[in-house]
Amino acid sequence: MCRWMAYQGSPVYLEQWLFEPDHSLIHQSLSARKSEVTVNADGFGLGWYDEREEPGQYHEILPAWSDCNLKSLARHIKSGLFFAHVRASTGTSTARSNCHPFGYKNWLFMHNGQIGQYEQVRWQIDRWIPEHLYNHRRGSTDSEAIFLLMVANGLDRDPVAAVNTTLQQILNLMRDKGIQEPLRFTSMLSNGRDMWAVRFSSDEHAPSLYYKQFGEHVVVGSEPLDLSGHGWQLVESGHMVKVGIDHYHTDELTLDG
Amino acid sequence: MCRWMAYQGSPVYLEQWLFEPDHSLIHQSLSARKSEVTVNADGFGLGWYDEREEPGQYHEILPAWSDCNLKSLARHIKSGLFFAHVRASTGTSTARSNCHPFGYKNWLFMHNGQIGQYEQVRWQIDRWIPEHLYNHRRGSTDSEAIFLLMVANGLDRDPVAAVNTTLQQILNLMRDKGIQEPLRFTSMLSNGRDMWAVRFSSDEHAPSLYYKQFGEHVVVGSEPLDLSGHGWQLVESGHMVKVGIDHYHTDELTLDG
Amino acid sequence: MCRWMAYQGSPVYLEQWLFEPDHSLIHQSLSARKSEVTVNADGFGLGWYDEREEPGQYHEILPAWSDCNLKSLARHIKSGLFFAHVRASTGTSTARSNCHPFGYKNWLFMHNGQIGQYEQVRWQIDRWIPEHLYNHRRGSTDSEAIFLLMVANGLDRDPVAAVNTTLQQILNLMRDKGIQEPLRFTSMLSNGRDMWAVRFSSDEHAPSLYYKQFGEHVVVGSEPLDLSGHGWQLVESGHMVKVGIDHYHTDELTLDG
Amino acid sequence: MCRWMAYQGSPVYLEQWLFEPDHSLIHQSLSARKSEVTVNADGFGLGWYDEREEPGQYHEILPAWSDCNLKSLARHIKSGLFFAHVRASTGTSTARSNCHPFGYKNWLFMHNGQIGQYEQVRWQIDRWIPEHLYNHRRGSTDSEAIFLLMVANGLDRDPVAAVNTTLQQILNLMRDKGIQEPLRFTSMLSNGRDMWAVRFSSDEHAPSLYYKQFGEHVVVGSEPLDLSGHGWQLVESGHMVKVGIDHYHTDELTLDG
Repeated sequence: MCRWMAYQGSPVYLEQWLFEPDHSLIHQSLSARKSEVTVNADGFGLGWYDEREEPGQYHEILPAWSDCNLKSLARHIKSGLFFAHVRASTGTSTARSNCHPFGYKNWLFMHNGQIGQYEQVRWQIDRWIPEHLYNHRRGSTDSEAIFLLMVANGLDRDPVAAVNTTLQQILNLMRDKGIQEPLRFTSMLSNGRDMWAVRFSSDEHAPSLYYKQFGEHVVVGSEPLDLSGHGWQLVESGHMVKVGIDHYHTDELTLDG
Repeated sequence: MCRWMAYQGSPVYLEQWLFEPDHSLIHQSLSARKSEVTVNADGFGLGWYDEREEPGQYHEILPAWSDCNLKSLARHIKSGLFFAHVRASTGTSTARSNCHPFGYKNWLFMHNGQIGQYEQVRWQIDRWIPEHLYNHRRGSTDSEAIFLLMVANGLDRDPVAAVNTTLQQILNLMRDKGIQEPLRFTSMLSNGRDMWAVRFSSDEHAPSLYYKQFGEHVVVGSEPLDLSGHGWQLVESGHMVKVGIDHYHTDELTLDG
Repeated sequence: MCRWMAYQGSPVYLEQWLFEPDHSLIHQSLSARKSEVTVNADGFGLGWYDEREEPGQYHEILPAWSDCNLKSLARHIKSGLFFAHVRASTGTSTARSNCHPFGYKNWLFMHNGQIGQYEQVRWQIDRWIPEHLYNHRRGSTDSEAIFLLMVANGLDRDPVAAVNTTLQQILNLMRDKGIQEPLRFTSMLSNGRDMWAVRFSSDEHAPSLYYKQFGEHVVVGSEPLDLSGHGWQLVESGHMVKVGIDHYHTDELTLDG
Repeated sequence: MCRWMAYQGSPVYLEQWLFEPDHSLIHQSLSARKSEVTVNADGFGLGWYDEREEPGQYHEILPAWSDCNLKSLARHIKSGLFFAHVRASTGTSTARSNCHPFGYKNWLFMHNGQIGQYEQVRWQIDRWIPEHLYNHRRGSTDSEAIFLLMVANGLDRDPVAAVNTTLQQILNLMRDKGIQEPLRFTSMLSNGRDMWAVRFSSDEHAPSLYYKQFGEHVVVGSEPLDLSGHGWQLVESGHMVKVGIDHYHTDELTLDG
């Protein structure tokens, strides 16, 4: 399990959201509250959009709280749409190539959750990744494989359909293999203009997912970024939402578990 | 604050003590119990004696639980006297040069605690380190400075006197500077034959320090290495003990706080 | 391209071969002589056998010359059969999971060379790795994929046949894809008892491969470990040799390029 | 010895100078031309000015050519005044805290050279750093100590006098200690508005230092950033120059070696 946050609004220094709130993502890296796993110290990552089409990315294997580079970068990089993620590994190694967010062209993706008993389906899932996307595989996480499958399944044309198709493929495979552990998938996607959040689990325990619209900007996260939690809305489990500064559109995922 | 352990006895693979006990040091790196700080993930280190006079050393900035090298090294390195330490920084950076244990010739030292308001005395304490030892300073921790002062104060001739003299010097300086925060110093020393443990604080809250003699070997640690805690003895605060497989000699520190 | 060495003989401290010769592997990491690429600073690795069946392993992304841990480990680890490798990446990232040697059960493998235009065959080669071995894939190098294919092709039963079969598979695929760049493959294998060295290229430029028998031990390497080169023998291109302290058996590879 | 470059002009993406020229700093990290040391792979660093008063900083221990983060940061960070440095250690460890540039408030400093037989003067030089600056000492290099001494000697009021005073102090100490090796000091300073370059050695072999004014911007570096070298001017040894887009003022250092 991991923790993450996303921001869209007028360009701000990243530190304003990464470090300053009293339950900021950096604070959550050491003491998350809405999860059994409280320490998220197996690497972290940033992805941010600016004038270029492809987002900037920064991944590091240290705990987010102890990387002096992150402090300076977050003080000096401004963005109007950025993702940040702190990782708690569910088995794969602590390596930059396994740190979220993952990028493909103008897209960013980050994930909290896991494919239950992943070792039993890793081989098959990797085989589903088409050749032209497979060369983009950097690491060995289930998260990156799911992202590349979503790209293959038409993420750029119809994000809701791509997520539905991909999760259904994986659920079917897990059922065929007799896997008992759930598929948990709470994630964030962006193409640089719009943001989509997904909250899903094949059991009753979808990882938490909150958002708050501030008028001028919107923040989405695994948990509220302030200890009070005031004004943070929970995304409904089994839903995919397109969320922006002034809009919130929700689609129910049509999955057959 | 940090967590550490030391072993003396017949040579064993390090993993037997680092990984296997149900509250092993690796377990403590994520969830210490006898400390307000439960996460010790700002680097770690090993020091071990073998046929050579100077000990082997290994320091890494990753959390101990996520370093794949540590797993293999601990499975393949055997020692009859070794130290292991997981660090929770009290301010200085996460760098190999700040990771314990520190070595000088045949000596090893590791520490849990801190000099209160260290930034106010760092300059003076570094100035006390004699030139021939100063070139051995690798990092910027208070712990390493204390160790070099102990060496300067005759650690090799009379360890108890060296610890007393050094702590008294620092206490005097802290008093002169009007420092209110305590000096906390729970530490372990070895010359490769004998081991000494020190438990001290200038206030009432000396960090915990336990040992257990198993007949064939002895283990000393910040906390018991098993969750039951059965048979682990607490070292008395304000004392320095020489502890081995079959001996335990305690000296009261004669400090004027 | 990379540089590597292997040692078999009476147990010695690794530093005796890694650091002390005047053209040691550490020296080669900065200034190789028998290669156009003179700097091999994209990580390094060790694998060594001792009393346990599975070898110890240590991988790091720093240049070998600047890792203080390596200095201490090489002074304190003794082995009678060990591999060491310094990496010059041919495209994949600098990550521990891409550092040689690669291990599987009691086997070690390290490689100097590359599959030409690897990005064009990576997808297919990964698909050939059987499911029970695929979960051992740690990184994204061509080298690791070749190793797992050799295991799949019966390395444990008949090493010469496994190497022949695997290289032929890859050559066929490269021909089918119309790849012009060569397959270069100079490598070392061991099961903990015996060592095999392979020197091959599909063009005329097989990477160099030398060995020297010292009576009590044997050393194999990408280049001689002393600047004089005295007594070092070149392995013939297109051959796989089983080499030990007192034996040297060569097989010609029967490949149809 | 190290390599470095500085840029002042209209804001550009850092990659335009770090990666794109045919003898860019990244290229020099692997194959410097104007130095006996051709490999500068013991860490690197960036410092850049933007809207904030204090510069951004990024330091890493990997070779500059193999850090995937650097590639993305350099594609996404824009600056009108930045420093970049690739390090070849002269003895101190490969650690982020030893990577240039060093910062103090609005100042940046980077250095190529060394204090001869530094171990003989390290103790004394550190003692000269005043207490209020000593707490800013992050690492153990001679370069950082020189920088803090320059700050102590009035860098902010009169940079030329501060450099003169500091170098003279060190030269006097080296003479007192009977040190034979030279003091080599080719460096760059900026307060965020102006840039100063210094080229000095106590012997005849001052490290190279070039600049080129392009009309809209100026670049200073250890060597020309293009292989042709066309239009690059050599700074005279023993001089300190204030250099900008359209000005170049030189002062002779008045040192008594």
